[in-house]
Formats: sequence, structure tokens, C-alpha cells
Amino acid sequence: MVANVRRMEDRCATLGVAFRPHLKTAKSMDVARLIPSANSHGITVSTVKEAEYFAGHGVSDILYAVGVTPDKLARIAAIVRGGATLRLSVDSAAAVEAVQAAATTHGVTFDVLVEIDSGEHRSGLLPDDPTVVALARLLDGAPGSRFNGVYTHGGHAYEATSTEQIVAIAEDERASVVDAAARCADGGVACDIVSVGSTPTLVHGAHMDGVTEARAGVCVFHDLYQVALGCCALGDIAATVLATVIGHQPAHGTVLVDAGGMALSKDRSTQALGPQGDCGYGLVADLSGRVIEGLKVDEAYQEHGLIRGPGADPDHFPLGSRVRVLPNHACMTAAAYASYHVVEGTSVVGSWSRVNEWV
Amino acid sequence: MVANVRRMEDRCATLGVAFRPHLKTAKSMDVARLIPSANSHGITVSTVKEAEYFAGHGVSDILYAVGVTPDKLARIAAIVRGGATLRLSVDSAAAVEAVQAAATTHGVTFDVLVEIDSGEHRSGLLPDDPTVVALARLLDGAPGSRFNGVYTHGGHAYEATSTEQIVAIAEDERASVVDAAARCADGGVACDIVSVGSTPTLVHGAHMDGVTEARAGVCVFHDLYQVALGCCALGDIAATVLATVIGHQPAHGTVLVDAGGMALSKDRSTQALGPQGDCGYGLVADLSGRVIEGLKVDEAYQEHGLIRGPGADPDHFPLGSRVRVLPNHACMTAAAYASYHVVEGTSVVGSWSRVNEWV
Repeated sequence: MVANVRRMEDRCATLGVAFRPHLKTAKSMDVARLIPSANSHGITVSTVKEAEYFAGHGVSDILYAVGVTPDKLARIAAIVRGGATLRLSVDSAAAVEAVQAAATTHGVTFDVLVEIDSGEHRSGLLPDDPTVVALARLLDGAPGSRFNGVYTHGGHAYEATSTEQIVAIAEDERASVVDAAARCADGGVACDIVSVGSTPTLVHGAHMDGVTEARAGVCVFHDLYQVALGCCALGDIAATVLATVIGHQPAHGTVLVDAGGMALSKDRSTQALGPQGDCGYGLVADLSGRVIEGLKVDEAYQEHGLIRGPGADPDHFPLGSRVRVLPNHACMTAAAYASYHVVEGTSVVGSWSRVNEWV
Repeated sequence: MVANVRRMEDRCATLGVAFRPHLKTAKSMDVARLIPSANSHGITVSTVKEAEYFAGHGVSDILYAVGVTPDKLARIAAIVRGGATLRLSVDSAAAVEAVQAAATTHGVTFDVLVEIDSGEHRSGLLPDDPTVVALARLLDGAPGSRFNGVYTHGGHAYEATSTEQIVAIAEDERASVVDAAARCADGGVACDIVSVGSTPTLVHGAHMDGVTEARAGVCVFHDLYQVALGCCALGDIAATVLATVIGHQPAHGTVLVDAGGMALSKDRSTQALGPQGDCGYGLVADLSGRVIEGLKVDEAYQEHGLIRGPGADPDHFPLGSRVRVLPNHACMTAAAYASYHVVEGTSVVGSWSRVNEWV
């Protein structure tokens, strides 16, 4: 994990942008403390709960990168009153209106970014949509809000089937916010923050001219899908699930472990990679984290995982023996846990907390 | 939920078997208190954590229906020393050996069932495998263990494509443990417990002659997959996720809510039902729980859900408005939450705790 963090810090330095790690993956202050930029620049979160947790632990600059809604603004105002800079996201006049009304109600000023859609079409406004500049002006001109700038997430990089495609999406991502920022400037409103981010676009993007910061989260732990996207090697995966062998069905070539859907999540993202790339519910590794060729958790019930592959038998994996499972998607898998066991080599040297729940 | 519980209690009474609810779905003592049989007969759990939690709250008869492993026996012994009857599951001589060794170490006697494979081929022994009687004798003859009987889970009912298939699997399930129990009796070892269970086989099975108890868990809440299996109606689904509209992409016909993979789980079980039956990541209902025809959460990112279907627009779902999402798989969805909001009509009248984590 430490090496993964260093690699992303170096990458951002090379690209000439600040790193604003997305803590939605690790959701842990113990992890945040080990990311220099989290403390010197700021972090990204995806829930108000995370914002409360990190602000409560002294993180002073937080981007809440999910569209804000009226019902959450009382809690958000409390965080702002506590002294943290908590930057909000809007992509509609209705959201700006809600933010400004809450500013009056709660007697605070909110920092706000406008979300840009750089091609994922999940959320945000297209960079040439006149609403972008209109919202920037609305935010800039009112006493209850400060317009901070624009941000986007090139999440469609996750559907790319080649590095070239990711490079192209990274350029769309970059160009979209730079374009939107230029339009805001033309409209008389400056963008202090021009923010992009996703692990694949940050790893593979060619350059970041005009961008001020990059966000990425899963890069701290990495996972099997990031391996498939060429963002890391198998050996870089830093979050694994320790599982115990609970039985066998020799007639069916399976080893059962006590890690099923609850332990691994039901995320099947690697299924999209086709039969060759499909890792089931995770690849199987020994206690040192070395992948055991050809073995995967092929089925996951609530608490049972079925390992199939060469050597999936009682001789190689006796009852009570242990394996590590490398996850398809670290964000989803980590969500099943209230804390992390910190491992150096094969020794547990500590425990790190995390904050769960989603609202 | 109360009606669902009553229906299962009545069903078991009609079939002439005791009901041993599987609390792996609800994982809540507040729910357990509302299931008469949980208190008068006993419960089923799938993790040691659940066993600790329910025993700690006074549940006196608990079946831990996942193959036991050596590393868990110290915690299990502590529960037994606390006074609860905690029944363990084995399907190999290695497991019996581990149980008996731990009995000596910890100075307790363990209650143990032998797991039977009734056709799912996930775990357990085939009823005519001579190992069944051999394990029963091993358990019966030693001072550290008591042989309680046999149990099975007809989990392959979840792959059935017709009610007739479920009825047939229910009969396989029943016949397998009755057969195994007869073989044990022939071998001189009586089975006090002859246990079957899964929600679909309990709902659809024709009779339970020779069976002493039935286990089922998801029936307490039900979900979209249970609707597909004919186990309940849409209106019986008692666990839903309250989500707030965070934005729109009118050009793409989507309404965004703050319930994504974290809130709903990545369980896509209804995908197996084909395009007609696929509910995405959940169906969308109004605040009273009435399904809104044709609307579903079509994509789920970590914290974003995309609703698509007729009326998925800002006019019908303005920013900040709320919907309920009916889950594909209640066990997985509930796992994201530390507690339940208890709803009567559209009012929240209480909060129920639950126990998470999987070991």
C-alpha cells in the first residue's frame, strides 16, 4: 500500500498536478495519514458520513464528489461550522438553490464545484452546456456560496478494452474540464480548481495541461480489475481477504472456504473481461500474497466460497488451512469490514479503522 | 415482516415440523424477538459472530450451519460454556477430530450434526456415503461430542426455473436427510434432529414426513428473487432501501439516486431470469412501498444508482425527492447497514440493531 501511494504521488508530481486521494476506497484515517497529499492538499469522499469522519480527524480540505441534496445540508453545514473546507458538487440550478437556501438557514458559506460530464454520462453537465457558466455565476454572485471550479470523473475508462482507449478517455476527461474552465473564465468567473480523476486515467493519461488536481482512490489498494486495466501488477494488490478452508467436495473438485459474498462482495466486474479474464469472486493466493496459478473463488454463497482449479483438493488445502483472496473490486470488498489487519510480510502488525455506511 | 413471519410459522405448523429461522438474513435480535419459534425452538446462524451475538442476547438453541474449522472452536467453546446449546456442522473425519480435540482442550462437550448433500453439491456428504454413519458413530462414542442428527440445505432450488422443479428439489432435500437418518438408526445411532431448509423448498415442498425441523431466513424480509421463485408477492418484500434523488441526465433518460453498490449490494441474482425478469439492482417503489411500474435501478456505481424507465425525469423525481428500492437479495443488501429503520405505513417508529462481519 505504501508503494502504491508513493507511485501515485510521484505520478501526480510528474504530471504537475496536486493529488487529492479519494478515500471512498480505504475509508480509513489510518490510511489517510500515510498519504502525504491527503494532509497537504486535501481528500475526496463520496458520502457525508466519510466527510464527518475525516473532518472529525482533522482533515481540513474535503471534496464531497457526489451531487448534494437538500436533506444532507444540515449535516454538511455542521462540518463547515467545525472549520473544515468541505467542497460540494452541483449540476443543476435546483441544487444551487438548495445550497444557497441552506446557507441562509445555517448561517454558513458553502464552497461549491460544478460537475462536468466528460463522456461517462452518469452525472454532470457537458462542458459546452451554457448551464455550466450560469451555475458558476449563480454560485459566485451570492453571499451563501463560493464557486470553486469544475471537476469530472472519467469513469467510462472502466469500460475501455485497450490502453489506447484509456489514454483517449483521459484526454476527454482533461479537455472537458479545461474547456469548461475556459468558458467560465470567458463568462467572468475564474476556476481555482480544475479537477479530474479515476485511477485508470491518472495512470495512463498522457498529460494534464490546464488541470490543477487529480483524484483517484482504488489505486491505494488496487484490485483485479485494475490489473486488467493495466494500472498495476498482481503483486501490487494491497488488500486481500484471509479465508479458512471449511470443507471439500472431492467429487466436484472444490475446496470450500468461509469467505463468500459477505466477505468478498458480489462484485463480478472481471466477468466483463470474458472467460480468460474472469476471476470469479477473486483469485486465490498463499499467505504471503503470491497468487496460486489457476485457482479462483468460482462461486460465492452468503458465507461459503467455492475454490476451483488445479490442486483444489484436501491434500493441498486441508481443513483449517488458510488462503488469501485477491478482490475484483477493492472498494466493494473493503466495505464488508469494520477494520483492516495491517500485514507486513505474513505478520499482523496492527489494526486500522474504517468508516462504513453510505449516507 | 410480521405477516411474513406468521406465514412461515403457519406453514411449518401445517407441515408438522418445528421452524428454526435462519437469522443470517436479519442478523438482528429485535427481529428474532418477533419470531416465536426463534425463542421456543431455536435459530440458525452462519457465522460465529452471529452465534456470539444471539447467545449473548439469551437465545438458547443455535445451529451454526456452516462447516466448523479448528480456529473457531475456542470462541465456540466460550459460547457453550456460557450456557447456550450451539450445534455445529461437520462433513469429514478431520472436522470431527478437530471438534473432539477442542472439546478436550476447552473442557466442554460439543453438539454436532452431520451435513448431508441433497443435490446442491456445495457441502455435505451424500446420504448413502458410509462416512455419514461413520461420523455419527465417531461423534456418539466420544466424551467430547454429542451426535444430534443430520441436516441439509436444498440451495439448488435457487436455480429452479419452475415451481415443479422446486417441489422436486424439496422432495430430494427431505428424502436425503430421512434416508441418512434411517442409515444412522440402522447403524445404531439415533438422530434427534432431521433438518431441512431453504425458503423456496419450505414454501413449495409437498410434505415433510420424517423431518423434525425446517430452516429458512430470507422469508422474513423476502426480495425480488423470492418473488421470481413464487415464494412471495411483491407487496410482501419487507426490507427496502430509502434513496434520495441527487440529479438527472435528461438526455440519457436517467434519474440519479444516492443508492449505488454500497447501499444495494452488487448482487445481480435476478439477471439469471433473463431480460424480462432482470430487475437490475432493484425495483423502484414510492414511499409507501408500491412499485412504480417499469422503473429500476439499472446501473450501480459505488454511491450512484441510475434509475431508468418510464417517468425517469426531473418532473416526476425532482432533486431531493425520495424513493424506496426493493432489493434483489435481502441478505446481501441488509449487510450494508448497522441497523434498520422500522417503518409502519410511511412513519419510522423505531430502530433495530443488527450484527455484521462474517467470521
